[in-house]
Amino acid sequence: MSRVSAARRAPSKLVEVWRNEANGITTLSLARAPVNGLNLELALEVRAALESAVAADSRGIVLTSSLPTVFSAGVDIREMHRPVVQRCYEFWSSLQDLWLTLYGLPIPTAAAINGSSPGAGCLLALSCEYRVMVESEHTIGFNGPMLGVVIPKWIQDTLIRTVGYRQAELALLRGKLFQPREALNIGLVDELAVDKNQAVAKCEAYLADFANVPGAARAATKTSLRQEAMDWLRKYREQDTRTFVDALMLPKVQEDLDNYIQSLKNRSK
Amino acid sequence: MSRVSAARRAPSKLVEVWRNEANGITTLSLARAPVNGLNLELALEVRAALESAVAADSRGIVLTSSLPTVFSAGVDIREMHRPVVQRCYEFWSSLQDLWLTLYGLPIPTAAAINGSSPGAGCLLALSCEYRVMVESEHTIGFNGPMLGVVIPKWIQDTLIRTVGYRQAELALLRGKLFQPREALNIGLVDELAVDKNQAVAKCEAYLADFANVPGAARAATKTSLRQEAMDWLRKYREQDTRTFVDALMLPKVQEDLDNYIQSLKNRSK
Amino acid sequence: MSRVSAARRAPSKLVEVWRNEANGITTLSLARAPVNGLNLELALEVRAALESAVAADSRGIVLTSSLPTVFSAGVDIREMHRPVVQRCYEFWSSLQDLWLTLYGLPIPTAAAINGSSPGAGCLLALSCEYRVMVESEHTIGFNGPMLGVVIPKWIQDTLIRTVGYRQAELALLRGKLFQPREALNIGLVDELAVDKNQAVAKCEAYLADFANVPGAARAATKTSLRQEAMDWLRKYREQDTRTFVDALMLPKVQEDLDNYIQSLKNRSK
Repeated sequence: MSRVSAARRAPSKLVEVWRNEANGITTLSLARAPVNGLNLELALEVRAALESAVAADSRGIVLTSSLPTVFSAGVDIREMHRPVVQRCYEFWSSLQDLWLTLYGLPIPTAAAINGSSPGAGCLLALSCEYRVMVESEHTIGFNGPMLGVVIPKWIQDTLIRTVGYRQAELALLRGKLFQPREALNIGLVDELAVDKNQAVAKCEAYLADFANVPGAARAATKTSLRQEAMDWLRKYREQDTRTFVDALMLPKVQEDLDNYIQSLKNRSK
Repeated sequence: MSRVSAARRAPSKLVEVWRNEANGITTLSLARAPVNGLNLELALEVRAALESAVAADSRGIVLTSSLPTVFSAGVDIREMHRPVVQRCYEFWSSLQDLWLTLYGLPIPTAAAINGSSPGAGCLLALSCEYRVMVESEHTIGFNGPMLGVVIPKWIQDTLIRTVGYRQAELALLRGKLFQPREALNIGLVDELAVDKNQAVAKCEAYLADFANVPGAARAATKTSLRQEAMDWLRKYREQDTRTFVDALMLPKVQEDLDNYIQSLKNRSK
Repeated sequence: MSRVSAARRAPSKLVEVWRNEANGITTLSLARAPVNGLNLELALEVRAALESAVAADSRGIVLTSSLPTVFSAGVDIREMHRPVVQRCYEFWSSLQDLWLTLYGLPIPTAAAINGSSPGAGCLLALSCEYRVMVESEHTIGFNGPMLGVVIPKWIQDTLIRTVGYRQAELALLRGKLFQPREALNIGLVDELAVDKNQAVAKCEAYLADFANVPGAARAATKTSLRQEAMDWLRKYREQDTRTFVDALMLPKVQEDLDNYIQSLKNRSK
């Protein structure tokens, strides 16, 4: 996977990375216009950027978006529409790897959610340790069920661990997208901010709290807490991938996507 | 089991069923006077009514009571007092089956709790997805521990998933029955209502939220979320039944029931 | 272990025990000046006192401290600094046994936390069923991560069961010590009190609630609820002990403790 990653990353600039030398914090900003759709290339590049930041002894990560109104719109529909099967396997595997890397990252992580964050966008935010969302009309959550998608167990569990079983069940049954204040009320995000700058600043404040916590013990504590969820995916990842690909290949699902894409085209005319 | 069900249901009218053709919602109203005591016949009939509603493509279920002050008083004491062992096994098995059916029902479910709901009455309400309780002096919870009953693990887990471990532990240790507002505060119910009509209307509003959610994905999501709890009972149901029957057959327990029933008789003189 | 306990307890007075004959409640007051540091002797003596109270048919336990500003400062640093390996194993094993006994105690338990309660002090409080903390500048929580310590899984789980996964994760990553009101807000304690007398009275009120609950059913309910966490430690206790001892024996850890102790000595000059 890392060979593919290296080969494909060279020419692209899907993630903007900068490091604040004063505090050692690295900011990763998703920059795949128009909506930070998660495709194979973006997933590989985010993961590589996380690993580089750890290798360079970053003190923490702020994950945000370079786009004005979208954190990430979730999985790029082009990864799902009339796909090549082999690419399909690679894509889902890259998403699993990205989650395993981000959810278990040994250094502190926080998401500055500066716009819409449905589906896999919400997953990225939930995989960080802390979430600050800009207060606006944009929403966050898993709307997959509204589109006929069954959220996989490891993603369900990431949500359950954040908001508890009861709120997670209601959210997933409804396929609900939450306004920022609703998200705050159920614990889906930890703080609100008036704009992106404030969101990033609050994320940095979260990360700065750990300046005096010994990194090795903190990393071991995080691993120990998150181990069980990660072990599940490590054990069942092939079955999870097959479930995703098989569901995607159903004629009915592809026909629904045909119609959906046609409606997008008609709308944009 | 379904043969027994069919045979026994024919002459009875323990559950009133009606379907609103405008919205496709089926209402099941428990109607076993005087207190909707759960016995073998009522458990079989509720389960059969749920399965019929699913088979008839209902859009959702409202579970309520036809009695003015009781949702369900829990297990009918006559199923426990000086019982025939074979009946005892059948009764407990019917309660397990009812829970498995209701908790895992593929269509949306909501309980309009229009009166007292202790013990297995509370279990029925918790097995729905959503609960609205009429504000009155009537209470809800598991008072079993007050009566010397140990709540089985699958019932404990149904409570834990709703209110979290901490509140569940306190409630079960205390055998506490909650006033409606207390129940709302810990998440044991989701909303309050001024009367039964409003409670039913709020349940229907919960169900109507799903009018545009694809049913198959929703059902698969629900199954996936509730699977683990249901698998436990499927795996250990015989052991669970034996535990119930063995506890019930203890001379001390039957003597306590003798005294309790005698005190009821004396009170009603 | 009980032989050691008996031998070592005779001459000591590390725990003050008295029983209120009016209500059958036993108070255990930690009295190992200056800070109720948990060492082998104190752990053995608390455990023995708990078992004696159960054997004497106590109706419940209030756990508190005889010191004015400290509930318990956690593990006595002298058990960790340049230790004899055999003693190290015995100490950790005594802490495991104390938790197994207190967490699973068949009678009701409540902690009147009348001062600082970091680390293993917090664990003792969390192992009771109910917690009342005196409002003051003193704090409660697990600061281990700040000191480079990884909190073992069974202690993590005791915290998670009390405050939920999300709050537990944030608390453990931060190594945060909570002011009493903060502790109340996340559910780490159940009530606040103005002073020790009121804290003890509120604990007694919690215990008195169970005067009419049949003891055997209550004990079986508690065992059933807490079983899974206890089974984990029973299964992995040797591995857990080795992890503790191995971590402690690292030269770097002992050097850090050298420096810490030297700094304490300098401060007290």
